Amino acid sequence: MREKGLKNIRLLIQYDGTDYAGWQRQRNLPTIQGVLEDAIRKITGEDIHIHGAGRTDAGVHAIAQVANFYTKSALTPHELKRAINAHLPEDIVIAAAEEVPPEFHARKDAKRKVYLYVILHRDFPSPIWRRYSWWVRWSLDIDLMKKASDLLRGTHDFSSFTNTGRSSLSTVRTIYRAELIQKKSGFLLFEIEADGFLKQMVRVIVGTLVEVGRGRMDIDRFSLLLRKKERRLAGPTAPARGLFLKEVKY
Amino acid sequence: MREKGLKNIRLLIQYDGTDYAGWQRQRNLPTIQGVLEDAIRKITGEDIHIHGAGRTDAGVHAIAQVANFYTKSALTPHELKRAINAHLPEDIVIAAAEEVPPEFHARKDAKRKVYLYVILHRDFPSPIWRRYSWWVRWSLDIDLMKKASDLLRGTHDFSSFTNTGRSSLSTVRTIYRAELIQKKSGFLLFEIEADGFLKQMVRVIVGTLVEVGRGRMDIDRFSLLLRKKERRLAGPTAPARGLFLKEVKY
Repeated sequence: MREKGLKNIRLLIQYDGTDYAGWQRQRNLPTIQGVLEDAIRKITGEDIHIHGAGRTDAGVHAIAQVANFYTKSALTPHELKRAINAHLPEDIVIAAAEEVPPEFHARKDAKRKVYLYVILHRDFPSPIWRRYSWWVRWSLDIDLMKKASDLLRGTHDFSSFTNTGRSSLSTVRTIYRAELIQKKSGFLLFEIEADGFLKQMVRVIVGTLVEVGRGRMDIDRFSLLLRKKERRLAGPTAPARGLFLKEVKY
Repeated sequence: MREKGLKNIRLLIQYDGTDYAGWQRQRNLPTIQGVLEDAIRKITGEDIHIHGAGRTDAGVHAIAQVANFYTKSALTPHELKRAINAHLPEDIVIAAAEEVPPEFHARKDAKRKVYLYVILHRDFPSPIWRRYSWWVRWSLDIDLMKKASDLLRGTHDFSSFTNTGRSSLSTVRTIYRAELIQKKSGFLLFEIEADGFLKQMVRVIVGTLVEVGRGRMDIDRFSLLLRKKERRLAGPTAPARGLFLKEVKY
């Protein structure tokens, strides 16, 4: 990988995931990684491969996905950014590009990730936010949801909060921050920061918090989920459209 | 119009105008009014006609368009709202419906309207906001733009700030408020409140403010535009995608 003259380029990427089958390249399906690699290959003429910090699922968005790739291109990072953007569709954008040390790896070096989940809580949906939020019209006990969020902090086995297809051996993760913020506009913003996330973990957590808010699950049972390891005890998976990869920390 | 048993229903409407040829019904083109009338006709079986407060142009959005229509339907306003929403596409939503006195007319009774224009000012576009903002990457003197905005307040002849196809006899309008707010996220929000607006007036004002910000027009010349009546002296028309009808006051 580290041939002489190869530069390691780190990208900061934003995307609207609505029309994609997720980050990871798949044969015959539009994916973020696939579209990005095709765009970069057109520019550099190399058979490049990009490493993303997180494999977002189908329909999930990113405000700040991080990825890196190696190239022999003579273009500066700024020129690469401009050129790649010119080859991308409107729903994927390079926000920044910079050269980094050869050993930097977007996925392996990621220390923490921050996800944002947007719930629109009111009695009619939003035409503007329809692709970027989960419209919930049930009445919700927000204070109870906040109490449940608080319980997430710390190191737990999150087996109850993940869907099958687990990609890692350990199901233990450390949550540094989990907050639910109520905006007067009807938006409920859930932000969660951890050393890593299991498959669909944020969406199962949000789906379960809404069960708590609706009064269909009490705080004790929510707390129990963090000790039990049974997915069937948790709530439904919240829709992908409300989820944003907000930050990757190194 | 005011047959016995007719109820006058006032609607509060939100829409994503991207895929529409504007508010006003047109033969063979998708319009907000057309889609709304078709939805309501399906529910009530009547040949209803709706009056909108403002005829937004192609691609312009609404956070709170107001309209009214007369119906003999036995449904309550709340039931009508639910039923109409069930017949609307995702990009048009009834936020509220209520019965109002028979003499209420959404357009004729409107005292003031508030429009919001969203500029995204940074060096890369946004995949999330691409349908709802004008991406501007020129460097801008925001303070100068604010000074120019301040000059708009008051009663002026806005002939310089409108495109052909004027729908009203007088081109004099009173601006009660015109402010440019800079958000740290890179958004520039321009809000303007007036007793009425000429065709594409907000978009020509915004296009001209950006000329001022770029240093291509000085404050004196901007000020002159409010006394002269020459469209060719003003700036270009800002794109429809950044414009929202935010409020109608009665």
